[in-house]
This record gives sequence, structure tokens and C-alpha cells, in this order.
Amino acid sequence: MRVAVIGGGAIGLLMACLLERQQVNTAIYCRTEKQASLLRENGLLYKNEGMEKVIQVHAYSIDSLAFEEDIIVICVKQPALAQLAKLLVSDLSKGKTFLFLQNGMSHVELMEELAGKERKVWAGVAEHGVMKEKDNAVYHAGEGRIRVAPVIVKPDFNWENLFGDTTKVEQNAAYIPMLSEKLLINAAINPVTALFKIKNGMLLENPHYLKLMEYLFDEALQVLELQKQKDGLLEDLYRVCRNTKNNRSSMLRDIDSGRKTEIDSISGYIITSGEKKGIDTPMTRMIYESIKGIEWEG
Amino acid sequence: MRVAVIGGGAIGLLMACLLERQQVNTAIYCRTEKQASLLRENGLLYKNEGMEKVIQVHAYSIDSLAFEEDIIVICVKQPALAQLAKLLVSDLSKGKTFLFLQNGMSHVELMEELAGKERKVWAGVAEHGVMKEKDNAVYHAGEGRIRVAPVIVKPDFNWENLFGDTTKVEQNAAYIPMLSEKLLINAAINPVTALFKIKNGMLLENPHYLKLMEYLFDEALQVLELQKQKDGLLEDLYRVCRNTKNNRSSMLRDIDSGRKTEIDSISGYIITSGEKKGIDTPMTRMIYESIKGIEWEG
Repeated sequence: MRVAVIGGGAIGLLMACLLERQQVNTAIYCRTEKQASLLRENGLLYKNEGMEKVIQVHAYSIDSLAFEEDIIVICVKQPALAQLAKLLVSDLSKGKTFLFLQNGMSHVELMEELAGKERKVWAGVAEHGVMKEKDNAVYHAGEGRIRVAPVIVKPDFNWENLFGDTTKVEQNAAYIPMLSEKLLINAAINPVTALFKIKNGMLLENPHYLKLMEYLFDEALQVLELQKQKDGLLEDLYRVCRNTKNNRSSMLRDIDSGRKTEIDSISGYIITSGEKKGIDTPMTRMIYESIKGIEWEG
Repeated sequence: MRVAVIGGGAIGLLMACLLERQQVNTAIYCRTEKQASLLRENGLLYKNEGMEKVIQVHAYSIDSLAFEEDIIVICVKQPALAQLAKLLVSDLSKGKTFLFLQNGMSHVELMEELAGKERKVWAGVAEHGVMKEKDNAVYHAGEGRIRVAPVIVKPDFNWENLFGDTTKVEQNAAYIPMLSEKLLINAAINPVTALFKIKNGMLLENPHYLKLMEYLFDEALQVLELQKQKDGLLEDLYRVCRNTKNNRSSMLRDIDSGRKTEIDSISGYIITSGEKKGIDTPMTRMIYESIKGIEWEG
């Protein structure tokens, strides 16, 4: 069995490490040939709190992707996914098994389209703490779960076997609630940390930032129709802040590096989804324009 | 005729300069004896784009205020005004003429109380661009108007005569609309500039910051019941941003210096006033908690 990991960001590099740990034959497809050749020549440095290890990987530029592998793990961010969509729906990828690991929900339509067209499609959520330190180095800050759920039809695939015992894999029945819960947490945490340039833990310490986070949580909860689970999800929210208190969210890191953030896939999705349902989201619109304003300044 | 200026901040020092220019006998009452003695010993340095001039002033600590002057111009900020209130309503100040120059509307109650008790009370709005450079130095960045309006009963006083031809004084009939219009502009401009640490002009350049400003404007417009004048007031808003494009708002300067801001008198007033009228102000609540959060970090 061969696996293709698409995307050389933090999640893509981590997936390659986790798969190599299981001696799965894995190839990484990167946006640039520069990163691919760096990975081929120098290997991929995997670090966690206790160890450092160089992993030899197959790495190619995305241009050479021909879907020769059986399993395709898609780790690019939402904006890059839009560019990739044409290739994914081409005949080349028929019959393959897909795992999508994106934040937000903007990729639901694409996943459903593929699932309706002879692909075995799984939605996934990576809960690992991970930072890309260089183009060929990741720091695995916290072990988490990979949650997976089949899209539309349940395809026959055992992800627990693929990733092995060391990596926790949780199988979910429905993908929309799984993605919604992750989106809810991201919509509450990420833009506030990015706006104030704070670590996740500060959201619980500063009573005003806490209130901002809860305001955004309440709006997203309503739009995503998760009100019935409010108490449990609020506990999840606080738990994530506590467990990742020293982390800088991916949105904060994007802002600090002058990269485009995922604000459109996260807060933007809440706003447009709310509009379709006739739910106003003024607080989410405030934080959305705030992050867009900072991006605009560059 | 003798005038007491209470408060040694930017507006207080500027008022002393404008009055001294008219050779009005003026005393400044400062929060600290340190500032008062600095002013007495070294004079007050007045600067504008074309000139610098040292003005000799009478300066005392607020502890020695005995209302011996005829005219009392109150230039302290809202939080300090609360501490001063007891002294102002004491019998000592009976029969005197008051001019209140504060942002926000939290002082309306105090002004009305005094106006009902044998004081001649005027509300005022200072539209000058002014920065305090040191405890005894002000930079007068832009000439503006001083707008005045009588509170409750129209007292007999000619502010145009007091300030002379060089300082524009505009007499208004009603004080609530005058203060509301100023509050509206402040509620839209000040917290956005303070949050993003930007000069006023950037509010027109960055389309996302512009949107944030307009969101706050719309909420405040509704709470202050100024909807009928929307077009004209929106023009005023843009004009203020253009005319003060290189200015850093007082709220931004307070944040940068680690001082307490006027967020409670501005956005906080809009929120509580909205609550009394059954109008929700979610966007104003977002910016309110944002500024409070930054203040909390100190």
C-alpha cells in the first residue's frame, strides 16, 4: 500500500512522519520543487519534546502528482485546495481513497462531489499540536487524535491499521458534526489569538479576551446548530485553551509571517452560512474585518 | 474676570494658552503639585507649526481649589471627573460659571445637577488637535472650534468675548445633540485606531478598518437616535478622519502610554445607553472588550 501526502505544511509533514513511523511507503507532494528537493536531499527532521530524528522521505513537486498511490491524504489549506480541485476531480483519481485534513467547512462540497464519483472519501480532523520549523523540519508539540468520518457512503478502510497503535485514530459516524465541532473551536480561539498576538492560554487569563472568545463561540454555535451540546462544547473549548496554553495558533503564526490566514474558511464560513440561514453574526463580522484589515496592511 | 482651568492634560494646557493669548487672568489646577510647580517655575511651552512661546501661568495643585475665580473650565477626563464631583457640588462653587469639556456623555447628570443648583453651566466640545508633549508643553496640531451650549437654563455669558476672535467659538442651542454628535464620532474612530495602533487617516485607506468604523458608527447612530442626520454625520466622520489623518487619537495615545482610556465613557456609554433603550450593540461590545483586554494586559 502506498500513500500520497499532498501539502508540505505542518500537518502534511507530520502525517508523513506518523506514516513513516509505521513503515508505510509515503510520498510527500509539495507546492514547490525547492521544498521537495530539500526533503529528498536532507530528509525530514522530526522533533518532539524527547527526541529528534531524521526521516528519509520520497518528495516531489505537486506537478508530478499522478495518483499512483492508493491513499491520498490531503493536507493543504483551504485556499490551496481550491487550486487543487480540478486535478482532484480529474479521471486520474478514480477509485482512490481520500482523507481530507482541513480546517473549516469550505471543502464539504468538494468532498461530497468526489464521494459521488467513485472515490472513497473521508473527512478528517487532526488535533495534534505541530509547528513547521523549516521546510524540512517539524516540531510535534502535542500528541492528539486524528478523527475520521466517511463522507456520504461509508467506504471500507481501516485508518487505525494504517497509522498504528501509537497514533490515536478515532472513527466517527458523521462528518458534518465532526467538522462543525472543530470549526466552532477554531472560530472562537484562532482569530482572537491572532488579533491580540497572544498564546492560547491568555484567552482564559484575561477576562476580556475570554468574553470575546465566548461571544464568537455563541454566534458560531447558533449558526452551526449545535446549541443542544453547548455545555459539553464549552468544556471542550476551555480544555483546548488549557491543553494548548503555550501554543501560538496557526492564525497567529500566519499573521506574524505575513501569510494569508484561514479567516475566510473559519469566520467567513460562519458569516455566509449564517446569512443563508437568516442568522446575523455581528461579532464574527467584527473579528473577520479585524483580521482582514491586518492582512491588508501586510 | 478670573478663570480657573481644572486639569493639566492636553486640553487643559491648551485652554490656558488660548485664554492667556487674550490676556485673561487664568489659573491652572493640576492633579499633582509636581506639575503645578513645574508650570510655575518654567512656564508653559506652547508650540504650533509656526512658532514656540513660553507662557507664564498661575498653577496650583487641585487641593488648593477654592472657586475664587468667576469662570471654571473643567478639562479633566471622565474618570477624574467622578472624583471631582463632590467638590463641584459643594457650596463653594455656587453662582460660578462652568464650562465642561469632556468626551462622552457620562457627565450629563452631573452638569444637570449643578445647573439645577445655582450654577451657570455650559457643556462644551473642543475640536482642536492638541498633544501634551510634557507636563508643561503642548503641541497645538490643528486649530478647531470650541462649541458651547447651555445646560438646562440659558445662562448669560459670552464665550466669544472670553476667547476672542482668534479662537473660533460656536454657540449651540442644545447640549445633548452637540455632545451626541461628538460622542458618535469618537465611538467610531477612537477604539479602532487604538486597537490597531493606526493614525486616523488609515481608517479611510484600509477598507476593512473603514468597515469596522462604519459598523460602530451605525450602532452608535441608532442608540443616540441620530438616524435622521445619518448622511451629514457620515460626511462629518470622513471629514474628521481626513482632517486629522496624521493624528494619533487620544485613546491610542493612552494605550501606548499604559494609561486608562476613555473607553467606558465612549463605547461603554453606547452599550449601557443601548441597554436602557432595548437596543443591542454587539459590535460595540466587541470593540469595548478588545480595548478593555488591552488595558488589562497593561
